[in-house]
Amino acid sequence: QRSRSTMEDSTGRPTKKTVAVVGGGLVGALNACFFAKRGFKVEVFETREDIRQAEVVKGRSINLALSHRGRQALNKVGIEDKIVSKGIPMNSRMIHSLSGTQSQIPYGKKGQFILSVDRANLNKELLTEAETYPNTNLNFDHKLQDWSAETGQMTFARSDGSTEQIKADLIVGCDGAFSALRKQFLRRSLFNYSQTYIPHGYMELTIPPINGEFAMKPNHLHIWPRNTFMMIALPNLDKTFTCTLFMPFEDFEKITTGDEVIDFFQKYFPDAIPLIGVDALKNDYFRLPGQAMVSIKCSPYHIGDKCVLMGDAAHAVVPFYGQGMNAGFEDCIVFGEIMDQLNEDFSAVLPEYSRVRVPDVHAIADLAMYNYIEMRAHVNSKWFLFRKHVDNLLHFLMPKTIVPLYTMVTFTRTRYHEAMDRWHWQDKREGGVGRISRGMQEAGSQAGGIRHSQVHWTL
Amino acid sequence: QRSRSTMEDSTGRPTKKTVAVVGGGLVGALNACFFAKRGFKVEVFETREDIRQAEVVKGRSINLALSHRGRQALNKVGIEDKIVSKGIPMNSRMIHSLSGTQSQIPYGKKGQFILSVDRANLNKELLTEAETYPNTNLNFDHKLQDWSAETGQMTFARSDGSTEQIKADLIVGCDGAFSALRKQFLRRSLFNYSQTYIPHGYMELTIPPINGEFAMKPNHLHIWPRNTFMMIALPNLDKTFTCTLFMPFEDFEKITTGDEVIDFFQKYFPDAIPLIGVDALKNDYFRLPGQAMVSIKCSPYHIGDKCVLMGDAAHAVVPFYGQGMNAGFEDCIVFGEIMDQLNEDFSAVLPEYSRVRVPDVHAIADLAMYNYIEMRAHVNSKWFLFRKHVDNLLHFLMPKTIVPLYTMVTFTRTRYHEAMDRWHWQDKREGGVGRISRGMQEAGSQAGGIRHSQVHWTL
Repeated sequence: QRSRSTMEDSTGRPTKKTVAVVGGGLVGALNACFFAKRGFKVEVFETREDIRQAEVVKGRSINLALSHRGRQALNKVGIEDKIVSKGIPMNSRMIHSLSGTQSQIPYGKKGQFILSVDRANLNKELLTEAETYPNTNLNFDHKLQDWSAETGQMTFARSDGSTEQIKADLIVGCDGAFSALRKQFLRRSLFNYSQTYIPHGYMELTIPPINGEFAMKPNHLHIWPRNTFMMIALPNLDKTFTCTLFMPFEDFEKITTGDEVIDFFQKYFPDAIPLIGVDALKNDYFRLPGQAMVSIKCSPYHIGDKCVLMGDAAHAVVPFYGQGMNAGFEDCIVFGEIMDQLNEDFSAVLPEYSRVRVPDVHAIADLAMYNYIEMRAHVNSKWFLFRKHVDNLLHFLMPKTIVPLYTMVTFTRTRYHEAMDRWHWQDKREGGVGRISRGMQEAGSQAGGIRHSQVHWTL
Repeated sequence: QRSRSTMEDSTGRPTKKTVAVVGGGLVGALNACFFAKRGFKVEVFETREDIRQAEVVKGRSINLALSHRGRQALNKVGIEDKIVSKGIPMNSRMIHSLSGTQSQIPYGKKGQFILSVDRANLNKELLTEAETYPNTNLNFDHKLQDWSAETGQMTFARSDGSTEQIKADLIVGCDGAFSALRKQFLRRSLFNYSQTYIPHGYMELTIPPINGEFAMKPNHLHIWPRNTFMMIALPNLDKTFTCTLFMPFEDFEKITTGDEVIDFFQKYFPDAIPLIGVDALKNDYFRLPGQAMVSIKCSPYHIGDKCVLMGDAAHAVVPFYGQGMNAGFEDCIVFGEIMDQLNEDFSAVLPEYSRVRVPDVHAIADLAMYNYIEMRAHVNSKWFLFRKHVDNLLHFLMPKTIVPLYTMVTFTRTRYHEAMDRWHWQDKREGGVGRISRGMQEAGSQAGGIRHSQVHWTL
């Protein structure tokens, strides 16, 4: 064991307070930059080895859609351009019908797009950026073992069996959906928490390049909407596409042989078979079982003036609005804004952060769940196209009045809960009174099992 | 450490399977009787000392309302009459208005009543009953430390520092709202869970006897409905009443002196001041802070063929429907019915129990939360009386068609979720379309903060 002094530097002069960021994933690494920029002494603790020196870690989705909120956060620490330059713009959805026809639906106005970014690369860039601050220190192979919300004392276990202790003035929990830090929140009275697994799993497959070029048009998010089943594909810099197949666990399990995989694709995604390749499909389908998706909500996000949760540790969402990472990145901006307002007084900032952020993050969690429920119920390619065109037509006719929810969420920093409220209001004007409300309440009804409902979904 | 053989008795002959019941509270002790009656070797493990030898354990509510479902469960193991003889029948509610007038509202038809029972006494009786089975063994001072859902191996810690291991064929978790057993469920994929604390706390106060007699009429559940604040009182065998005061935590905290307590009671519960006594009130109010109330829902209730949760460990409910204990006792009946249907094959019984019981227990959790939301919004004594009289009048006019929800829940074994569905249907006939549905969906919306709504509440 070794102990670090947190309140003075090596010459004995008092330094700025120490912020311990638990988790060196996307939100943890970005948060390190935010706190370092303010002059705090930042210590990042990550369970895994440095991914910049390791082979690719599997298990999490490979690519992500970066949109306005996430970009704004990157902008605040001066790395938006760098990250955007390594992303692939997706200007529109490309809807694949069962018969193989493809139809484009723009994401927004001309010039608006979302970006396909590589998770591992983004994480590496953010870690490297954090290290450019002299007041930031990255500690890999540090697994949180125990901590005190009263004193800020933390104990980490190393893989060599040793432990290390550090005392921080603020502990920022960015350790993901299965947060170790959050366990102690859960034991406290008056902490509200829910985790809801959905009956669908996901599986990643790859479409390789053809003759060194993308096998499909690259500047789109490709979607195969098939009601209960759905597949999407996002482009990567190496000219591959990563496909994600969503379907109920029970359907994943029904397919047990390579031939059954092909039969299944022949029935629902015939145009994808030559793109993925028959042999690859037969093999890759069985590499991993369908992966679970969970929606996690909690409140409050803080304990006293010592600890705050951000990113997936505070709010894992299902991936059906493309906002998981963007919401986590926006957490950093919102926290920073409140730090400015309240002079970095943690005892005031932390409760205010919970007060302000909880309704917004619950709104995006509900919206993502709502899309899941809608999708499951009956989204085929015709329905998808029809709904999107109606939304876009209304927006075209009344650009000030009817702003598609997708646009508010994806291309503005309108607070999530305000976007949702405005959407409810618009829905009433469109004559859909109560329709969305009912679906939303279902989406909000956690842990009670999710029932079927109506309307469209959004990606 | 010592280890017990579970599959053969001392002579080496095979015995019936071992069931480990974790928790010797109300549901644990009753469950021990149910499993013992079937011939299983039953081991009950309780963290605390034997309450039959200890002074009264504080902290949990002192008295409870036993109704039909609970009584049916006691009946199955032959102790209904014994328990009922030590309860005090409450035939009607007694509503105390602010001006001091008292009005009765019957609980059901003539002869229908609920019973005020003493928690500690009921627990003692159940433990003693469990011990009458030679195949049952009670282990106190056994705190669950670790267990395996794969092997059924469990480790218990004793207060002398030693540990003890036992392997069971089935582990039944009856260890309450803060279940130690449930922690391992929480770590598993596809386990849905929510805990929701409500903004109200509760506090218990006592109305002593006057000249050796009850200070108010004993055969009632006394209610002082005051919108945000509410007090109830249940009679005890020793001629006292236990009052429970419900109010928001922030209001509890506003009162800091004995005089402020009296001012508060003078304003809202003036007729209770002479009953409790000025000095007692000034002191007892500050004995303990307001106690938290939590609603816990999860699913599924089982892991494989090895472990199942029942009672508060599976479903803590807020106390606004008087069904917490009754639902827990009914769990034992439902499990028993499924054991009969499926020949005690745990690998079939456990999933079927989750399938059947989850929707019912979620329904009663939602109903209890719904009552809380309604009560908070605007229940004063006039409104309470009006709603109850409307319900009873409709039931009188159309006894087959309109059965008050309270009656279905309290005096029948109609499945909770069927009672709720039927109530929704009735609400529509009464012209209240959507009104209840909206409130219920709010009630079901966990961890998202609870908003205000409409309609009546039930006790």
